[in-house]
Amino acid sequence: MNVLVINCGSSSLKYQLINSDTEDVLAKGLCERIGIDGRLVYQKAGLDKEITECAMPTHKEAIQFVLDALTNEKTGAIKSLKEVDAIGHRVVHGGEKFAASAVITDEMIAAVKECNDLAPLHNPANLIGIDVCSELMPGVPQVGVFDTAFHQTMPAKAYLYGLPIEYYKKYKVRRYGFHGTSHSFVSKRAVEFLGLDKDNSKVIVCHLGNGSSISAVQNGKCVDTTMGLTPLEGVVMGTRSGNIDPAIVEFIAKKENLDIAGVMNVLNKKSGLQGMSGVGSDMRDIRAAIADGNEDAKNAYDVLCYGIAKFVGGYVAAMNGVDAIVFTAGIGENVGQLRKDVCNYFGYLGVEIDDKANDTFSEEIVISTPNSKVKVAVIPTNEELAICRDTVALVK
Amino acid sequence: MNVLVINCGSSSLKYQLINSDTEDVLAKGLCERIGIDGRLVYQKAGLDKEITECAMPTHKEAIQFVLDALTNEKTGAIKSLKEVDAIGHRVVHGGEKFAASAVITDEMIAAVKECNDLAPLHNPANLIGIDVCSELMPGVPQVGVFDTAFHQTMPAKAYLYGLPIEYYKKYKVRRYGFHGTSHSFVSKRAVEFLGLDKDNSKVIVCHLGNGSSISAVQNGKCVDTTMGLTPLEGVVMGTRSGNIDPAIVEFIAKKENLDIAGVMNVLNKKSGLQGMSGVGSDMRDIRAAIADGNEDAKNAYDVLCYGIAKFVGGYVAAMNGVDAIVFTAGIGENVGQLRKDVCNYFGYLGVEIDDKANDTFSEEIVISTPNSKVKVAVIPTNEELAICRDTVALVK
Repeated sequence: MNVLVINCGSSSLKYQLINSDTEDVLAKGLCERIGIDGRLVYQKAGLDKEITECAMPTHKEAIQFVLDALTNEKTGAIKSLKEVDAIGHRVVHGGEKFAASAVITDEMIAAVKECNDLAPLHNPANLIGIDVCSELMPGVPQVGVFDTAFHQTMPAKAYLYGLPIEYYKKYKVRRYGFHGTSHSFVSKRAVEFLGLDKDNSKVIVCHLGNGSSISAVQNGKCVDTTMGLTPLEGVVMGTRSGNIDPAIVEFIAKKENLDIAGVMNVLNKKSGLQGMSGVGSDMRDIRAAIADGNEDAKNAYDVLCYGIAKFVGGYVAAMNGVDAIVFTAGIGENVGQLRKDVCNYFGYLGVEIDDKANDTFSEEIVISTPNSKVKVAVIPTNEELAICRDTVALVK
Repeated sequence: MNVLVINCGSSSLKYQLINSDTEDVLAKGLCERIGIDGRLVYQKAGLDKEITECAMPTHKEAIQFVLDALTNEKTGAIKSLKEVDAIGHRVVHGGEKFAASAVITDEMIAAVKECNDLAPLHNPANLIGIDVCSELMPGVPQVGVFDTAFHQTMPAKAYLYGLPIEYYKKYKVRRYGFHGTSHSFVSKRAVEFLGLDKDNSKVIVCHLGNGSSISAVQNGKCVDTTMGLTPLEGVVMGTRSGNIDPAIVEFIAKKENLDIAGVMNVLNKKSGLQGMSGVGSDMRDIRAAIADGNEDAKNAYDVLCYGIAKFVGGYVAAMNGVDAIVFTAGIGENVGQLRKDVCNYFGYLGVEIDDKANDTFSEEIVISTPNSKVKVAVIPTNEELAICRDTVALVK
């Protein structure tokens, strides 16, 4: 079965065409600057990347360009759109309505729209993608895979905030968590790869990328995660602050003469590693600056490692123990030094890192020593493959 | 030496007269409703409490009534004000200027004023108390004891937020922490009482009252604490939310049509156990409601215990281990069930609670079993005595 996986942002769109039988990626790429000018990146497996500037006033033209590229006579991955058997869409927010992926129907779309309030920038873009695909590929079954769904198993003690309970009852203000597709994929794979008992396992997944979140997964079910109502909460990220004293919102608003939206813009886009270091949001830039003796960059790095360690330590308490700590996503897969610096906090748990095994990039590998009392591993995430699998499971 | 300890709030004032040699409290009480009407509560050691309604337009009249009561012919604890040898004031915020208590001088007052920005409700009230005492008891040495001072040993990785670094450099936005006098007193006493090595000890203090904070104290020095720029951050409290996704400030503002100050008012005064449960901020009310089957109260209690456990677990990681976990303040000293429910998360650390020992109220006691790998204790806090001791140390 060929599954087209689509991840629609407000002005961009990522896609992969995956053969679900072999799990090979037949072609992949992205559309950028939708609504501005437009650029298509397309790459068929085994061939070079093609970059084409083309007018994309809306997501409709963008998806049409993707479909044309996929069926192009010379470099297309398939001969005709009839070879696309199903479409899987990433949907950011499923609220409390979706605890699992769902086949797209009119009722399902109406339910997603009711969650738009909780993700006003993302959900509408995801729905546009669904809408355009229905129009351009009528009859092809579509599935929505939610970033929040995996976390719906959290107990009330993990998802309720210390707020007036009416806010939860009236507005559904609670912890949702994001990156659920990744946390689900990586925690499941960790159980297999590390030979754990799925029904008796405690796994902590550190998804560390430009956005970062950590989750505690007990017996295959998420019991807690660091992101909250929105993806702003939790550890320090590329440009997001993560947790702060909520009173800082008022303090900064007064000092900088900003309204709430202005402060939120700072917390989401000008904070995190970038704001702390002044050198950028990318871990490579941070590490280069540290090597040059930049103290702010060093502090940013230390705050990140320390914050990760505190959340992981908290989740060990939440589950009353831990069998495995797993690192994934851009930073988690590629920055061995950070993995080591985080794990150095866990001597009391009997964690021991094998420095040679830890000197690795984007590879599925155990990085703890055989004597380590907790297994530590790197497991590359693959959200597109997870979306493909969920899609197949629901449509076949 | 007789030390008058004064804790001035905006419309209230608590006081104790302590003999520093015996550490006996000679008299104590409070003034309430200053600036409204006025009520004096006075109690000489061994006698009943006296309550007098008396006009207190300002803190000056309030302190004058306290001094009159202390020297009253019949029930006074002393014969004349000449027997007051020193005055110790609680001062809420010492910013980065004060890492220890300080004798009050003009320069010291000027430095405290520079911190007013960080505690706009508290520091000005504390300064009024100092001013009035100077006027009414000229020549008596005074000392300021800061709620923030003990936490000044935190490393940058614990006190920096994931914010643009200019906010720290320009406005001193950072974690300060509060209840420092209590955390200092209790952690020091824990080391003595539990026979730990001060220079090789890892202690976590859970100060749980109407306001709550937790601190990690390594080798006698604070290395982290849950309250932040303000006392709003950290665990769920009586009426304060503790940590939330900072984006909730904007979400609530929109939904409830509030400005930032309005949201802050909700987070500080209408949230926490009271807001979550709907039955009140007092743990006794919460527990009674749980006994009646109130699910919101049960959730509030569970969120509190779970939140404490996660912070403690995080601090175990921060210090790479823990020797003792100590409970103090109203809830910490008196609610054995909560201590037990929190400690139940720590089986992986080898924590074992002695249920019989734990059935205790406001008593200095070890509540872990002899086999427990981490010592757990209740140590009643005594901020007034700590202020008295610091005052004596600086003026004698």
